[in-house]
Amino acid sequence: MSYIHPYKDTAFCLEQIVEFDALCESGESDANMELAVAVLDEAGKFGADILAPLNKTGDLQGAKLSDYGVEASPGFNEAYQQFAENGWLSLAATEDFGGQNMPNVLNTAVNEVWHSANMAFALCPMLSMGAMESIAHHASEELQNTWLPKMVSGEWTGTMNLTESDAGSDLAAIKTQAVPEGDHYLVTGQKIFITWGDHQMTDNVVHLVLARLPDAPAGVKGISLFIVPKFTLDGAGEPATRNAVNCLSLEHKLGIHGSPTCVMEFAGAEGYLVGEPNKGLVYMFTMMNHARQAVGLQGLSISERAYQLALAYAKDRVQGTRRDGSRIPIIEFPDVRRMLLMMKSSIEAMRGLALVAAAELDRAAGASGETQKAHHSKRFELLTPIVKGWLTEMSQELTSLGVQIHGGMGYIEETGAAQHLRDARILTIYEGTTGIQALDLVGRKTLMDQGASLKLLLDEMQATSEALSQSAYPENSVVTGFEQALKDGMDAYQHLLVSAENDKHHAGSASTNFMMLFGYLCGGWTMVKGAMKARAMLDAGDGDQDFLNAKLHTARFYCEHMLPRTKSCLAVVKSGSDVVMAMPGEQF
Amino acid sequence: MSYIHPYKDTAFCLEQIVEFDALCESGESDANMELAVAVLDEAGKFGADILAPLNKTGDLQGAKLSDYGVEASPGFNEAYQQFAENGWLSLAATEDFGGQNMPNVLNTAVNEVWHSANMAFALCPMLSMGAMESIAHHASEELQNTWLPKMVSGEWTGTMNLTESDAGSDLAAIKTQAVPEGDHYLVTGQKIFITWGDHQMTDNVVHLVLARLPDAPAGVKGISLFIVPKFTLDGAGEPATRNAVNCLSLEHKLGIHGSPTCVMEFAGAEGYLVGEPNKGLVYMFTMMNHARQAVGLQGLSISERAYQLALAYAKDRVQGTRRDGSRIPIIEFPDVRRMLLMMKSSIEAMRGLALVAAAELDRAAGASGETQKAHHSKRFELLTPIVKGWLTEMSQELTSLGVQIHGGMGYIEETGAAQHLRDARILTIYEGTTGIQALDLVGRKTLMDQGASLKLLLDEMQATSEALSQSAYPENSVVTGFEQALKDGMDAYQHLLVSAENDKHHAGSASTNFMMLFGYLCGGWTMVKGAMKARAMLDAGDGDQDFLNAKLHTARFYCEHMLPRTKSCLAVVKSGSDVVMAMPGEQF
Repeated sequence: MSYIHPYKDTAFCLEQIVEFDALCESGESDANMELAVAVLDEAGKFGADILAPLNKTGDLQGAKLSDYGVEASPGFNEAYQQFAENGWLSLAATEDFGGQNMPNVLNTAVNEVWHSANMAFALCPMLSMGAMESIAHHASEELQNTWLPKMVSGEWTGTMNLTESDAGSDLAAIKTQAVPEGDHYLVTGQKIFITWGDHQMTDNVVHLVLARLPDAPAGVKGISLFIVPKFTLDGAGEPATRNAVNCLSLEHKLGIHGSPTCVMEFAGAEGYLVGEPNKGLVYMFTMMNHARQAVGLQGLSISERAYQLALAYAKDRVQGTRRDGSRIPIIEFPDVRRMLLMMKSSIEAMRGLALVAAAELDRAAGASGETQKAHHSKRFELLTPIVKGWLTEMSQELTSLGVQIHGGMGYIEETGAAQHLRDARILTIYEGTTGIQALDLVGRKTLMDQGASLKLLLDEMQATSEALSQSAYPENSVVTGFEQALKDGMDAYQHLLVSAENDKHHAGSASTNFMMLFGYLCGGWTMVKGAMKARAMLDAGDGDQDFLNAKLHTARFYCEHMLPRTKSCLAVVKSGSDVVMAMPGEQF
Repeated sequence: MSYIHPYKDTAFCLEQIVEFDALCESGESDANMELAVAVLDEAGKFGADILAPLNKTGDLQGAKLSDYGVEASPGFNEAYQQFAENGWLSLAATEDFGGQNMPNVLNTAVNEVWHSANMAFALCPMLSMGAMESIAHHASEELQNTWLPKMVSGEWTGTMNLTESDAGSDLAAIKTQAVPEGDHYLVTGQKIFITWGDHQMTDNVVHLVLARLPDAPAGVKGISLFIVPKFTLDGAGEPATRNAVNCLSLEHKLGIHGSPTCVMEFAGAEGYLVGEPNKGLVYMFTMMNHARQAVGLQGLSISERAYQLALAYAKDRVQGTRRDGSRIPIIEFPDVRRMLLMMKSSIEAMRGLALVAAAELDRAAGASGETQKAHHSKRFELLTPIVKGWLTEMSQELTSLGVQIHGGMGYIEETGAAQHLRDARILTIYEGTTGIQALDLVGRKTLMDQGASLKLLLDEMQATSEALSQSAYPENSVVTGFEQALKDGMDAYQHLLVSAENDKHHAGSASTNFMMLFGYLCGGWTMVKGAMKARAMLDAGDGDQDFLNAKLHTARFYCEHMLPRTKSCLAVVKSGSDVVMAMPGEQF
């Protein structure tokens, strides 16, 4: 059940598809490919040696609630201390608060390692990074100085407290109250599904909490954001007084047992307003774009881990006998190869899309003018629901294939394949379900700007398609496969813009298939970009020939086996809303 | 977590799509629709009242191995006694051994209830029925008289012992030995993954075991089939002496915890040869066709159960607020409706195909001449890998949708949705993986007769398509949707026949997508047949108008949302084997 970071794949993706060196030169970071490879190498070792062996421990001996609060799985505390000491929380944070100012895309590539090695553990730093991001963007300088340095160092962790039992996807229904009291607020209410809401690995836990002020307007316009620490600080900034916030219970979940999912009770807990009153939802959206890309990345990571396990089994397990009496490893059977190639090629496409999307944040930060900055910000926002929605949906299929390749052994828990499937199952749900991602893509990210952002993306893909065609790329199925899928994407795009005007339920009925179509297409875009680079390198005699030839293989497989799925997505997008909405509820 | 048998759907399917009354008239059974509805009604009550409440018990308190052997989950023993007393094991057995001689298709419809209510429990009678079938077809009269009456009455249960640790899909590798000793054999070896291999619910357990005789040829031509009882019988035919067969351990599985999965040790156990020596594999194929249809049925059943749970949640759970202040149940959101309709329409198609296939066995039995008998037997055999492969693959997607509709609550074990997903995950694996089914369809069932059987099926579908077109069916998407899918099916069929000659890996590379294509298509065939009947009944003013209109809705949804998937399956079928086979193994 070991894990090895696929550093060559990640490096190829960063260097050839993201064009990391050019990105760094145009931005504010001193990073370059050489540094990136060194960082990834260290991360890969830490993931493989320290975190991966604890993955099954977390599953079998999940977090527990005791009289002292939540106790993490055996070994997690020690691993966390090393993780923090090695500075892994500070990679993308600014130097002002002790960060290393590395590009977001590199931090993303590193985070892939943590989630592959131990997703339940990695949720803790993931939520911390999200909370830091939010404080860094929206809190006052005083709050930043108070809370950020120890979060960046990993001495304290952060959480996000959004959901309430009647307010899941519908944040308008949030009931938690925050009442002013001197220079702070008293926060009262109950939050559910709070990941790593409590633990004893650090001296403090910094909760970001959505709540309403007494005079707040109803609905989403009356939500504010607060910092509520587990311990309030003394004059020296050290945790001193236990705040009135407690974990009431832990959920008994299908997977990620190592990650405590808490019901949190705020009983007049001391809190501090982040930014302005009633702007909580706006602040949430910054936070959510990051968190959603992070969850999309988890979809990639868990699929990679499942692939490694299935691949090892397929090479090891023999079944049937050759004429010479030797036994045949099942990787030689066409249908097993097909499943492994589905995993491998999809994972490459997912990694391509995850890193291309993550790099847009760096491009926005490093942009020379407002127009370019806005362009890259919009691209980041456009790709976010696709990264979250498509990568996590794919992870369901791919981790399930991981089980399937194991045959009967896949159903036995000791094998480990089933854990990846169980762990992955949360990914299409938390940080906004697939349906919510799809509505975000169709509504806020596409219809709201009359399709302008998506059109720009389609135009870039068109340019890639033309370049591919003119490059005399030798495998025609790659050229036509991408062309066809792009045509389907344009067709869906045009259909959406027209239909949304006449059919109020069209967007909602078509959204998930629309999002999935663009997932397959965007993934394919990064695959053909990579394939063109690999082809050019092969022609020039550069690099590892076998590795580059494998890139051509996986791109071809993806174009022939995965891209045709755009057709069925398109058919659904075009079928309209009547078929979804017309049947009376009582006939279900 | 209650379960209600969807008797109206089953009755519609039996009456209108299977044409049950005509089937009974031409066959040997005295059954008719009136009797079928009465039987289904009783089964529905027993499933809902006795078995369904034990489904979660079985999950939480799975079977255990003690010093006395395997102990079933609490409540299972009492439920089994009632189940046997009510005669549910005897439904399809012949009257010679105390059976009720009901048609196979009715028994299949009844078995749907058991698997929906409690799949882990229902595996016990399912395996018994398979063993009975096998003994009834292949064992000597003496063995039949000895073993069958108490199996038919449910006083003893039966098991199937095929798999060994090095012989899963590859039965040629079986090592278990059977040595003649007087009038019987001594069986020695270890079998794994034996469902309900031991328990204390009955006085005896009758194992069917694949083993080799000392002089047997190597490979599959040297396998024989034996009856090996837990207790050998005394002169009066009563269990008397404990045989040398024991459960060594139970597997710790992802799901179906209520069903003990045993490692069985045969240590020179007394056994009796079934039929002729070295014919075990042939006998297995009879047994496997039945068992595979039964597992396909489990895919339908668990999807139905997951649908009922998700539907109840979607009607109950509110999210968001209307302008008048009232809350909105999530079933009104288009994307939730879409998911529910995917479940409902797919389940109807799956039920249609499962019952149409099951009825072919009755049509073969009741056929007037050898030609007709052979036609229906071949059809049954052709549909078997599709029923097993497609229904179980669909059950993965549908039980996962069941979780998704619950949002965050779906990931919490107490909700119950996750159990259905976990339970379903075995279905694409046991009784032959999806890959094995697909190879069976492509090889043994299609290429071996130069496509003759499949061509006959396609011709029948063509006739249905033409009838649909000529019926002036008002919804064009149904007419063209089925036409298009049928065209894809014919295209795949022709492509397979041609390619298999020139490309030795084509069948293996294309097989799963070929099988899935025919699954969607055959499911669609039963949907449009049902829709045409419903339309005619509506025109005639017959029947429940709302129910019949819902049939038109689900058929339309299936044609618009599910049938387009044949396109991506076809694209893969056409892409050939090079893309699957060419990449060197070390590049995975």
